[in-house]
This record gives sequence, C-alpha cells and structure tokens, in this order.
Amino acid sequence: MSDMRLIVAGAGGRMGRALTRAIAETKGAVLAGALEAPGSELLGKDAGVLAGLPANGIKLSGDLWAMSKDADGILDFTVPAATLANVAIAAERGLVHVVGTTGLSGSDNAVIKSVTNRAVVVQSGNMSLGVNLLAAVVKRVAKALDESFDIEIVETHHRMKIDAPSGTALMLGQAAASGRGIALDEHADRGRDGITGARKPGDIGFASLRGGTAAGDHSVSFLGAFERLTLSHHAEDRMLFAHGALKAALWAHGKKPGHYSMADVLGLSDI
Amino acid sequence: MSDMRLIVAGAGGRMGRALTRAIAETKGAVLAGALEAPGSELLGKDAGVLAGLPANGIKLSGDLWAMSKDADGILDFTVPAATLANVAIAAERGLVHVVGTTGLSGSDNAVIKSVTNRAVVVQSGNMSLGVNLLAAVVKRVAKALDESFDIEIVETHHRMKIDAPSGTALMLGQAAASGRGIALDEHADRGRDGITGARKPGDIGFASLRGGTAAGDHSVSFLGAFERLTLSHHAEDRMLFAHGALKAALWAHGKKPGHYSMADVLGLSDI
Amino acid sequence: MSDMRLIVAGAGGRMGRALTRAIAETKGAVLAGALEAPGSELLGKDAGVLAGLPANGIKLSGDLWAMSKDADGILDFTVPAATLANVAIAAERGLVHVVGTTGLSGSDNAVIKSVTNRAVVVQSGNMSLGVNLLAAVVKRVAKALDESFDIEIVETHHRMKIDAPSGTALMLGQAAASGRGIALDEHADRGRDGITGARKPGDIGFASLRGGTAAGDHSVSFLGAFERLTLSHHAEDRMLFAHGALKAALWAHGKKPGHYSMADVLGLSDI
Amino acid sequence: MSDMRLIVAGAGGRMGRALTRAIAETKGAVLAGALEAPGSELLGKDAGVLAGLPANGIKLSGDLWAMSKDADGILDFTVPAATLANVAIAAERGLVHVVGTTGLSGSDNAVIKSVTNRAVVVQSGNMSLGVNLLAAVVKRVAKALDESFDIEIVETHHRMKIDAPSGTALMLGQAAASGRGIALDEHADRGRDGITGARKPGDIGFASLRGGTAAGDHSVSFLGAFERLTLSHHAEDRMLFAHGALKAALWAHGKKPGHYSMADVLGLSDI
Repeated sequence: MSDMRLIVAGAGGRMGRALTRAIAETKGAVLAGALEAPGSELLGKDAGVLAGLPANGIKLSGDLWAMSKDADGILDFTVPAATLANVAIAAERGLVHVVGTTGLSGSDNAVIKSVTNRAVVVQSGNMSLGVNLLAAVVKRVAKALDESFDIEIVETHHRMKIDAPSGTALMLGQAAASGRGIALDEHADRGRDGITGARKPGDIGFASLRGGTAAGDHSVSFLGAFERLTLSHHAEDRMLFAHGALKAALWAHGKKPGHYSMADVLGLSDI
Repeated sequence: MSDMRLIVAGAGGRMGRALTRAIAETKGAVLAGALEAPGSELLGKDAGVLAGLPANGIKLSGDLWAMSKDADGILDFTVPAATLANVAIAAERGLVHVVGTTGLSGSDNAVIKSVTNRAVVVQSGNMSLGVNLLAAVVKRVAKALDESFDIEIVETHHRMKIDAPSGTALMLGQAAASGRGIALDEHADRGRDGITGARKPGDIGFASLRGGTAAGDHSVSFLGAFERLTLSHHAEDRMLFAHGALKAALWAHGKKPGHYSMADVLGLSDI
Repeated sequence: MSDMRLIVAGAGGRMGRALTRAIAETKGAVLAGALEAPGSELLGKDAGVLAGLPANGIKLSGDLWAMSKDADGILDFTVPAATLANVAIAAERGLVHVVGTTGLSGSDNAVIKSVTNRAVVVQSGNMSLGVNLLAAVVKRVAKALDESFDIEIVETHHRMKIDAPSGTALMLGQAAASGRGIALDEHADRGRDGITGARKPGDIGFASLRGGTAAGDHSVSFLGAFERLTLSHHAEDRMLFAHGALKAALWAHGKKPGHYSMADVLGLSDI
Repeated sequence: MSDMRLIVAGAGGRMGRALTRAIAETKGAVLAGALEAPGSELLGKDAGVLAGLPANGIKLSGDLWAMSKDADGILDFTVPAATLANVAIAAERGLVHVVGTTGLSGSDNAVIKSVTNRAVVVQSGNMSLGVNLLAAVVKRVAKALDESFDIEIVETHHRMKIDAPSGTALMLGQAAASGRGIALDEHADRGRDGITGARKPGDIGFASLRGGTAAGDHSVSFLGAFERLTLSHHAEDRMLFAHGALKAALWAHGKKPGHYSMADVLGLSDI
C-alpha cells in the first residue's frame, strides 16, 4: 500500500503540532494538509515550521474540502464545533476520520455515528494503549466488586485544559459503570464541594487537578473496608496520544465503514 | 502533677470512642466524663463498653456543667453547634478545651477566640505531628516558588465524611496562601467541573475524594514546567488524631490562657 | 452447621492477636485454642486479654495435638518451621489449615501440598479480596502487553517485617510471570544496587520499603514508551487479612480434601 | 555581556542532545563546541542535526583543547572518566564547568574540587529547581523528626540507566542524613533482599525502580506510628535538567573561582 496521506485538523494548536511531528516520524504516513479555523492568524504558515521541524511546504488552510481531494484520512483533536464541521466532508471524501476531540455532547456523538454506515470513524477519548487497557481492566474490576467498594476517579492535566473532568476520565467512568451495570449519568458525583453529606452508595466520584504541563494522569480507585485498589495511568508526553492516533489511522486505512474504538485498533476486546 | 481528668465530647461517635480508647492508653490522663447530645439514645450507656473496652463506670450524659465540676479538660471533635455550646461552659469551669471540630465558620471561630483571654483553647484542623509538619513545609515551599508553579490540594476520606474539602485541606491551603502572601478566600478554586476555562494563575485548587474507611490522605502539589513537587501525608488510623489530642491536652494543662495551635504543642514554629 | 471451632497459631504475636479479635467479631466462628511456641513466656496467658478483649478462658499452650481434639480448623500466620510442624497434626486431626505464612521454600511448599490428598489446606500469600483481585488483573495485563513494557513491583511494610520482598509481592510477580508465560525465577531482578547496567528486557523488578506501622502496600507498574500503567493495593489495617483468613476458614469448612487458594475462596477464577 | 559560548560534552548522547536543544532555546547562550569520545563513530556529524534541529555547522569532535579556545563554559553530563579528563582542560582554559555527571567516587570528587581554587565549577546530582527545593525541605523535616520516623527513599528511572540508586537519590539521602546529624555511609540500607531482619532504627533505606522512558521520579518518606509523610518530585522530561544546566552556566558566568551547588544558583540557602 502506498503511504497514507493525512490531514491534521487544528494544525496550529498544541496537539496539532504534535500530530504533525508524529506523521514525520511514522513510516507509511505523509502529511497531506494542515487545517486551521478560517480567520486564524496562522493561515498560510508552514505546518512543519510551526511544529518545530524543517519547512515541508504544507501551508495552514481553512478549506478542508480542497485539501481533502488528495488525502486518505484526517486526524482531528479539536473542539466539538470544528469536529462536527469536519464529519460531513470527511465522509463525503471517503477519509478515515480519527476523532480525539473531547467534550462532545450526546447529540454531537449521534451526528458522528450517523455517517458511519458509509464512512470509517475511529473515535476515542484517549488514543494510548495504556489508557485503553486500563479501561478494560476497570470494567472487569467494577464487575467483580459490589457497592461495598466506592469508585473514585481523579485526573491531572496541564493548566491550559478547559474542561473537567477530562474525556478520558469520563471514558474510565463509563467503563466502571458498564462493569457494574449502571448508567453513569445517574451515578456520577462531580465537583464535590461544601456540605455534601455522606457519600451516596453506588456513586462514581470524579475530581480534576490542573497545573503545570502535565500531559495526563488518570487514577481509578476502589475503596472498601480497610483496603483500596487503585488502577492508574501516567502519560509522560502528548506525543503518546499523537502516535496512538497515527496507529489508529493506519489500522483503519482500507477498513469497511463503521464506528471503531481504540479497543478495536489495539485488539483489546478479549482482555 | 496528678492525672489530667478529661471529658470526651461526642463520646458515642466514631472519633469520641477513639478518644476514650486513647485516654485509656495514655499515662497521666483519666476519663472524667462522656458527653453526648441531649436526647441521644446512647445516654446512660457505659463509655468504656461503647469504645470496645471493659466497662469503666462513666455513663454518657448530656450535662456538661455537671460533669465538668471534677474535670481538667475536654476533648471536642464534634460539630460546630455542639462546640459553640461547650465553649462557654469550658471557659467558666476553667477546662482546657481541645477543639478538633471542622466546618467552623468565621463567626464560630470568633466566638471561640473570644474566651481565650481567660481560657486555654488548643484548636487545630488536624492533631497529628505529620500534618502539622506538612503545613509548615508547604508554607516554606509556597514562599520559595512563584506563580509559575500551580498549587493543587487533594484529599481522601472515608465515605461517611459530610464536608469537603476537609478541615485539614483548608489548613494546608491556608499555609500555602500564607507562604505566598495571598488571601486564600480570593484564590481558592473548589469543585472544578464542566467548562472551566484555563486555570487562573495564582489559584489554589482543591479536590476531595470519598470512599471506604480511609482515615485521611492529604497531598499538596506544586506543578511547574516539566516538573512537579508533591508533599503528602497519609494517616493509617484515626487513633493518630486521638493521640494527638491527648498530647495537646497534656501540654496545655497548666498553661496560661490563650489560643494555641498544634504547632505550639509540637514546637514547630521554627521549622 | 454449628460454629466452626478455630485454633490461632502464634496467638501471642501481632497477627495472632488480630486473628483472635477477628474470630470474636465473626458470626459462625469460635476460638478453640491458642497455640504458641513451646518455651514462650506467654504460655498460660489468656488469649482474649492478650488481644485487648475481655478474658475468654483460652490459655496459650504449646500443645497443638491436645487442643486440636475439639477443633475444626487452624489459622496459621507464623514462620516456616512452625507451619511445617503444624501441617502433619492438622492433617491427622482433620483440621482445615489456613496458611498465611510467608517465606516458605519450594520444599516447604511441597510438604504442605503432600497432605492435601487427605486434608483441606487454604494457602495464600495474602488473604484480602483486593490483593487477590489485583493478582488476577496483573496476570491479564501482563498477558496483553509485550516486553516493550517493563514490569516493576514495589511494596511497603512496617519496620518489624523480616523478609523482602513480601510474600504478596512474590505472588504478584508470579501472576505477572504467568501472564507473560515466563518463569519468575529466571526473570526476577531483586535488590538492585550499584552499577547494574541497563535493565534486562523481560525482567520483573522487585523493591521493598520498610518503615513505621504500614500494614502493606503493593504496586505493580508496567512502564513503556512515554506511558506507565500502575496497579496497586493499599491495606489500612492487618485486620483486613485476619478477616480474610476467617472467610477462608468458613468457606473451607466441609470442603473435600485439596489445596485451595484465595482465588478459589473468593470465586475469582473467571476475572 | 555577550552571549555565553558553551560546549556540550557527550554531544551525541541522549542528555547531550537535550543540552544542544536547550542552548538553541536559551537567550544569551550559543553552542561553541560539541565534544564526543575520541573514536566515536559520531565524530564529524553536525550537532544540530543529531539533536533534531536544523544543521548548525558545529561538528562533533574529540578535541576539547581546540574547541575550548573560543568558549566560556562546558556542560558535562557524561561518565566519571570523561568528566575527570575534562576538568583539567576546563580549568586551564578558564571555562565554567557545569558537572551533572553521576556515579563519581570520593576521589573523583576530590579531583574536581582541587581545581576550584582557580576555576568555576557548578556541580549537582540534579539541576532542577524542584529537586533542589525538595532536598532543602527533606533536610528540615529530617531535623524536625526523630528516629521514631523511618526514612525511605525510592526512585524510578528509564530502563537504560546503569547505576542505582540515582545520584539524585543519594543527594536526597545526604540531605536527610545531614538534617538528622548522621553520616549517610554508616546508615544507608541499600538493595534490601532476602531475610533482612527487622529494620535497623536510624537507617535510611534506598530502592530503585527501572523501566520505560521515565525521566526521573524521587520520593522521600518518613514513616512513623500510624502516619507517613512523603515528599516527592516528578520530572516529566529531561529537558528540565538541560534547562537547569543552562541556568547554572549563565549564573556562573563571571563568578569568582569556587565550587558551587544548584542551591547557590537557585538561591535556596535560606529555605
């Protein structure tokens, strides 16, 4: 197969630049376009230079339709509005759409899923092997333990992150809820503060720490009588997620239409 | 000096029973009374039996005035309303008042301080050596680092705890704010949840985990560019706090009127 | 079924006293004997009093044969020599033998197994639900990850512990080795110190911390490129293990001869 | 002052390349030479290209004497033999010598100190602000607590590290010993394994974990009765140490001869 031609969405941002670097480091992938918001002052800049690499001749542009003519996939770690705008074009153009955007609503996700009868989408709150393995393990442990063990999820991210809890924390909460056979929405205890009263049995608690340059720590604890089981993941560098996205794109290249997860990409279904 | 005769407030509760056990284990201290809320169904029960000890003949009673006639001090880890009711009687009777109650408001604290021109009060959000040493260290580190390091405080307590953040977490936040020369009230970031935006420089973040039987973990992190300094304390058992309260009472016995802290008791002022 | 009559081995020690308390707290179990080393100065003392309970009339004795006449099981957290001495008598008397002793050699274990064609033995390096669940999970993760993830096990115990690594750490190492399909003996890297050279791929590292009164922390990390997965367990109090031993004894009462693990007791085989 | 002209020792190695990048990112510093071992196959390669930067025309060379003619300082994170070879030339040429090499023996250190009557040397086991602040705090806490608190130091580094414990762990151990007023050599408990017996009061324990790409975690715990105080540092990226070395070099430029520490550079003497 010839090299997979990939577009980076949000190419001027922190994660977009990491994706540009990851493409440069990955055999079998080549940068085909660099998308930025129309009106961004970065439009026209060279994507390589922005990423700390030698110039590569790919200029940032706001026109996904044009750049996707000669592309095979798009790596999209942006914001919900941008991702929704990309979904239809990616599907129409037959691009593999790797979605790492977080903060998507239920209806946002429905829009994304609606195209997967004809398009290939790989979507995950976290593209690392470690976190996806963690989610699989959390589900199993949550299934093995009853409500006498309280579940608490805490995550730490860099000071610029704008949403809490992280998409990954919610993904882990979903795994715990699924293992326990409950609906996360009805049992999430978020933003604990003030006179809260005693903990409600069966709840899944979330807490978020923010500071420095932390790439992302996640920890799921099961707290019982006189013992605690804690399952955690530490990401040292966001390149981890960029490389995971590349792995997802290459895996999905040529797959039949569908809505895939990183568990599919990584073959974790039988863990 | 003869044995110090001590009253346990909230003698039927979890911490009250730990205090009763601690008195039994401490040379130089003897149980002189066991206070419970008027109307409690535990009134009249033997304090020793409730604490898992042999019967000691001290029955739970709601009448502090009566029992304090032959007492030297009162150990008070209860709730704000109860502590305020105890303050005046303790001062009138000349009892050393060891206050470990948390969740006290500014005006509650003003009431407590108002008696200390004529009474001895030792008050702390946490009676352990480790936590008070931690607070001293947090203050120093906060002073040494500027706002390029973000401060985050996270604590874990058992599932029955009703307030968040813990009194100890707030005490550590106060230490950090004091080291940095800012007012905690204006910089506390509590209950982070939803679209929060980027972290506000200079804020001190708080997060609370609840579950199982955890006696109390506290952690203060300073998160900078590519590095993190974390100072933390782990309590294995609430007997730790009960023994700290005993140490405070014995230290304060015979001291002149004043409002003392555990830093005074432990001699930590020069750390 | 009538109450299970249990003997506590090492009844004068720290864990023995915890077992005595656990029996007193457990419905369906009753203390039938308290074994101590012949020559111990505690012989003749009351087991209840030693455990901080009211006197129960059971005096410490060195004669297992005599006391086992009217017993159904023996809880044995002692040392290898003592456990080996108990094995034959327990088998002869038809006692359920719950073995929590650590530091047993391969030949010690062979002796224990040799009686299980006619006797019921439950043996585990750790009797808690959490640790046994952790072991099951470690095995799965070790199976899912290849040698690009390094496995490291670290444990913390109180200052009086005499062996390192802990029996539980070795049990977790065994679970990791089993998941990876290797022999632990050939891949254990213990006591790292000095000029060690680079880490040998495929090794499983062990480190032991000792101090204070820590009841037992265990942590298994999988360290890969730019990410780390850590699975850990924290025991707050050794009563956790005492209660686990009681659960094991009650479960095994009436079972047919065999060599059982806590995974059997807890039904964790399908995790 | 004009830009400080810096030589990178071990320019082809992992840390050397990070130093080359850090110089490129630092205002007031410029790369003046790239030293590698005579005989290395990297001699003649461009230092910029090796570091993932555009070519900068500085070729790796084994001749420090020649390249130091037009230099102001040398950044040296190599191995003891290489550092000793550099010391004399750096002193003779009047270069600021920033030494981050670990594993130096007592006599190696004596050689380094012997030149500091006429040369400027900044030497530290760790060049980060956080670790040096941690060392200052560890010393204070060790001074405040007596032997009823056991001190344990654990560190984690990437799989390629060849020595254990890390230089930073030993530096923290030295800080603890100094605070307690004891000699580290007589109280270090390293490589714990097997039947160790109970912990010796007053010892300082060390443990080392190795795996993955970890840039360096260090943790100092004080374990007492029912409580634990843990002071820890996490480095996300070795660029942290490279930037610390740059800070040291710029600080030392123009200072009078002497043997300086990072505490001097960072002004931490009064913490």
